[in-house]
Amino acid sequence: MIKAGIVGGTGYTGAELLRLLVRHPQVELTAITSRGKSGKAVADLFPGLRGHCDLAFGEPDADTLAACDVVFFATPNGTAMTLVPALLDAGVKVIDLAADFRLRDVDQWQQWYGMPHACPQLLDEAVYGLPEINRETIRNARLVANPGCYPTAVILGFLPLVEKGLVDSTRLIADVKSGASGAGRKAAVGLLLAEAGENFKAYAAPGHRHLPEIRQTLQAVVGMPVGLTFVPHLLPTIRGIHATLYAVLDDADGDVQSLYEDRYVDEAYVDVLPPGSHPDTRSVRGTNLCRIALHRPQGRDTIVVLSVIDNLVKGAAGQAVQNMNLMFGVEEAAGLDAIALFP
Amino acid sequence: MIKAGIVGGTGYTGAELLRLLVRHPQVELTAITSRGKSGKAVADLFPGLRGHCDLAFGEPDADTLAACDVVFFATPNGTAMTLVPALLDAGVKVIDLAADFRLRDVDQWQQWYGMPHACPQLLDEAVYGLPEINRETIRNARLVANPGCYPTAVILGFLPLVEKGLVDSTRLIADVKSGASGAGRKAAVGLLLAEAGENFKAYAAPGHRHLPEIRQTLQAVVGMPVGLTFVPHLLPTIRGIHATLYAVLDDADGDVQSLYEDRYVDEAYVDVLPPGSHPDTRSVRGTNLCRIALHRPQGRDTIVVLSVIDNLVKGAAGQAVQNMNLMFGVEEAAGLDAIALFP
Amino acid sequence: MIKAGIVGGTGYTGAELLRLLVRHPQVELTAITSRGKSGKAVADLFPGLRGHCDLAFGEPDADTLAACDVVFFATPNGTAMTLVPALLDAGVKVIDLAADFRLRDVDQWQQWYGMPHACPQLLDEAVYGLPEINRETIRNARLVANPGCYPTAVILGFLPLVEKGLVDSTRLIADVKSGASGAGRKAAVGLLLAEAGENFKAYAAPGHRHLPEIRQTLQAVVGMPVGLTFVPHLLPTIRGIHATLYAVLDDADGDVQSLYEDRYVDEAYVDVLPPGSHPDTRSVRGTNLCRIALHRPQGRDTIVVLSVIDNLVKGAAGQAVQNMNLMFGVEEAAGLDAIALFP
Amino acid sequence: MIKAGIVGGTGYTGAELLRLLVRHPQVELTAITSRGKSGKAVADLFPGLRGHCDLAFGEPDADTLAACDVVFFATPNGTAMTLVPALLDAGVKVIDLAADFRLRDVDQWQQWYGMPHACPQLLDEAVYGLPEINRETIRNARLVANPGCYPTAVILGFLPLVEKGLVDSTRLIADVKSGASGAGRKAAVGLLLAEAGENFKAYAAPGHRHLPEIRQTLQAVVGMPVGLTFVPHLLPTIRGIHATLYAVLDDADGDVQSLYEDRYVDEAYVDVLPPGSHPDTRSVRGTNLCRIALHRPQGRDTIVVLSVIDNLVKGAAGQAVQNMNLMFGVEEAAGLDAIALFP
Repeated sequence: MIKAGIVGGTGYTGAELLRLLVRHPQVELTAITSRGKSGKAVADLFPGLRGHCDLAFGEPDADTLAACDVVFFATPNGTAMTLVPALLDAGVKVIDLAADFRLRDVDQWQQWYGMPHACPQLLDEAVYGLPEINRETIRNARLVANPGCYPTAVILGFLPLVEKGLVDSTRLIADVKSGASGAGRKAAVGLLLAEAGENFKAYAAPGHRHLPEIRQTLQAVVGMPVGLTFVPHLLPTIRGIHATLYAVLDDADGDVQSLYEDRYVDEAYVDVLPPGSHPDTRSVRGTNLCRIALHRPQGRDTIVVLSVIDNLVKGAAGQAVQNMNLMFGVEEAAGLDAIALFP
Repeated sequence: MIKAGIVGGTGYTGAELLRLLVRHPQVELTAITSRGKSGKAVADLFPGLRGHCDLAFGEPDADTLAACDVVFFATPNGTAMTLVPALLDAGVKVIDLAADFRLRDVDQWQQWYGMPHACPQLLDEAVYGLPEINRETIRNARLVANPGCYPTAVILGFLPLVEKGLVDSTRLIADVKSGASGAGRKAAVGLLLAEAGENFKAYAAPGHRHLPEIRQTLQAVVGMPVGLTFVPHLLPTIRGIHATLYAVLDDADGDVQSLYEDRYVDEAYVDVLPPGSHPDTRSVRGTNLCRIALHRPQGRDTIVVLSVIDNLVKGAAGQAVQNMNLMFGVEEAAGLDAIALFP
Repeated sequence: MIKAGIVGGTGYTGAELLRLLVRHPQVELTAITSRGKSGKAVADLFPGLRGHCDLAFGEPDADTLAACDVVFFATPNGTAMTLVPALLDAGVKVIDLAADFRLRDVDQWQQWYGMPHACPQLLDEAVYGLPEINRETIRNARLVANPGCYPTAVILGFLPLVEKGLVDSTRLIADVKSGASGAGRKAAVGLLLAEAGENFKAYAAPGHRHLPEIRQTLQAVVGMPVGLTFVPHLLPTIRGIHATLYAVLDDADGDVQSLYEDRYVDEAYVDVLPPGSHPDTRSVRGTNLCRIALHRPQGRDTIVVLSVIDNLVKGAAGQAVQNMNLMFGVEEAAGLDAIALFP
Repeated sequence: MIKAGIVGGTGYTGAELLRLLVRHPQVELTAITSRGKSGKAVADLFPGLRGHCDLAFGEPDADTLAACDVVFFATPNGTAMTLVPALLDAGVKVIDLAADFRLRDVDQWQQWYGMPHACPQLLDEAVYGLPEINRETIRNARLVANPGCYPTAVILGFLPLVEKGLVDSTRLIADVKSGASGAGRKAAVGLLLAEAGENFKAYAAPGHRHLPEIRQTLQAVVGMPVGLTFVPHLLPTIRGIHATLYAVLDDADGDVQSLYEDRYVDEAYVDVLPPGSHPDTRSVRGTNLCRIALHRPQGRDTIVVLSVIDNLVKGAAGQAVQNMNLMFGVEEAAGLDAIALFP
């Protein structure tokens, strides 16, 4: 059994990790920490876990965490980087669900996240945990930077086109919509039901922290600078990301449908839908799947990719478990076999 | 492996049965029928099942169904009763998720359901499938009438009080709220998002078909006529039933909290919350649980019971699987270990 | 023109007052204050008011407010009572939309609101601003305590029965559901879309501050102690209150429908629906109406009253404007002629 | 007073027309027809109109309609074209809220709408009712084709850029999201709360009927073929359209903010927000406004226009009233002064 710990388990990402890990056949959850809720039973904070989890939140104690095989950080940005070096030294593998290790360029990281980085020496070692690109390096990683939710949907949507160089990578557009849980479990007026319900809006159009993350990953794939316009929007739903992606095809005659089907044929968590489909966010709710559909409206040279994920699963905790499975050599799908709740 | 068939698998109850049965470790789903969708792949109708279910809908063919060990009816009221006798004769066990076998009194059934009953001779044999009351008879039943969603929430909420005769059974009040999926997957203007969203209303206050079902069950428990005022309401949610129950205590000094905890201590799917709790519907979403909390506002002699279920699980498909497990002697909890999605 | 000021205009009640007053034909809005937002343009905080309101928030300055004819308090509980005496001395009429002047008994007030009352001497003078009961005293009032949202729906629903002594007033039950805006514009985790959406729960079952308010008002009407079980619930909607009220009729033969129609025949803002109706909350959204329907399920002696209001209009700002109209002798309906948005 | 009639008043567009016209100071609503609901009181179908409208639905009788000054068609596509010629002959002005007269090219119309056109001779005369483009011709029109909801949001969003030729008109992208009321009041499974709630998806990506309408209008402005990729999405809200528009600037140095402010300075119903804004759909709910904000993410040459309307007001009934006001020489804003409900 893999002994797993969670640091910062009181938010949505932490709760989703709990939901997945308590039922994972090869995992024993041994520690869950929270400064604010220390001493409180997990099931008191998350009533849905009554009967499934006996743990109580503890302080993020170094010894307890060092006794884990793997520690997940479900903390705000800037926390993991202060604790990770000691854990790695103690031989613990680390998966950070926050952004501390996602960008390779420390200056860029510090600019977008507005604080000095505590261990820039680890940025090169950290593996970007998108199995569809980095599966083999993830297997051997000590430290995995779990991708952001928007980047997961956008990168998987653009990947086959960009890998093959079939589109103009200087003019990519990602119009992306996310449910409210993507903002985390924080009390903010703008996320109240009375504000975000029956409403829709774009936000952070001038620039969002996931932009450099997407750009860095696509640039590594294509080998040249990528131009991306990325506009996130807030959906009046709890879960779900829908990315509508636009790109100009260099070669308007290619069989893009086959390209995607071939690229993802062995990927358990990327489902390329039949031609003419429109994936809906509920079809992946609670699952680790990314479903993708492709359109060429009016046969023009603009391709439209529709890509949906559950922001808390493939966009966060599920992908983290997928990464853990790879890092520990267990079945990649272990603990990730849920079927979307319908309706 | 239990060979299971589903008749009428295109509605919400059928879809939920599919979700549960395709992952049930002791079940092989061998037939699913739908007159309207015959020939269509299940995964085409329910994209969330892509990769989990290879079946196609077939005609409700007698031979195919007769080869099953158990057949679930997820059909409109009035369908099961025309097919059940032949299936029972063929040695197939039947669980009807519609209302055909819920009422013992054929006249009452015909009055509330507005049609003649096709096999009244089976009404006595049919076992009302609420395991918390009828577990032993369910084990030996050929034909189980799976309870309605409202009745499940209301009966489990009132049961300990009524069993012990602690309340005035002539003045029970059940103020019950249900999500929109309770009305089934039927195109009706009143259930449109643009009508039922951002809205709340009572309906069927003069009388709802679940009233005689609740009354019959409670009367059997208490051994005398029961007076119940039952007002259902339509919630702007997809899933979830919340029953707020009111009764007048005969003995204002009793320890009702202990009574409930003791009554349900061995019940895996009834969770009595600590004093002071308010269960929310999401804490049981996608699960087979009924969570209950008890209040005595201002110490008066009126007791308030709060009871929540997922209408499609404990209120329909989950309870049907629980009944199947009992009928076939497998672990009662098999296939029913989901954790509620949060948030 | 009535010169009106609003103290605390940044919450939902204040915003709704703004929406109503800027279009009121006899009102000139002369001051709006907010300690936190002083200097900010109203239309910057509430973009929907762009083009309708040029004011900026100011400090709650005594002289500015003293120059108003009427001042509305849309502040948290405990604020109005510190400012009201000086305003009354300056000849300004006051309508408090918070709870400071709703209870006559200072001890009870202090117990439920958890603070000492700053001007208990005004509790006797303050008029409870429910026009359907106190129209004439409101006309002459200097200080109006605007009713709470739940009390408005519950009292109007029970009033005709209680006035005539037709029900057992010791066993009233009010099962009441409110949209999330009823909790105000405060950042609280429980009110996030990701928490309150797709969810339903009771809260404050042991006791809610609106209980003594309802009880006091009904007791004054009936002239004897009233026993009320009051259970509030949180709806996943923005606006709307639906009260489902239960009472036992002393005389099961009375014509309750006519009783209600007669009682409210001259009330512009109470609409008694035809027999068999189920009012929905959206039918009063944005309006000052209370719509009521009556049921006697199965002809039993329990009467069910369904009563809906918009918590921010008839349950707050609209009723406040109705009271202002009465206090200043203008048409009672001035500024209150909106039609509910549908759908 | 303008005597107005509505043909087909039972859908959402008709209901919204009713809401606006019954309070319009210069309008007397004299006829409302519906084949299906003839004889039924309007207030019975739309309870929110109780007390505001005494009319009953009648048959679409030629004489009754001919006695009107103006007739609004809120009918399905294909109905108005069979009745309009006779009404025009009778001297009645007509505003069609359906699509019968929106396209100038009869072949294109027949291709997208799948039926022969009944009066192609009127296509040239019909004026496309977007006041911001065609105000003067609307004033003199006998027949106005009221724009579609998506076209209104998209055209107003692109208009200043396209008029000035500042963008590459062959590569426009419109990623547009609409609330469920945009699909009309029809019972369709995909629009149920249990299907469209807590969900998001694109639809009609291969081609939507509003595409040729947008293209035709922009082409008339720019004087050359326009290339547009248009992807509509279904929002889990009742009302609201949010268009996110992308275009490549030919001249990256232009002051686009000023361009928009200048273009719309005299337009009462187009509100250009300050730089950095993100309009939300609720800020125009129930109003005739289009609110627009402009972004140049990372200073690149791609401009992002955010444009929101209420699909039933500026996208349908409100714009129809605005057109009527122009056609009859009354104040353009008459009856259109509502403030958005907040929250």
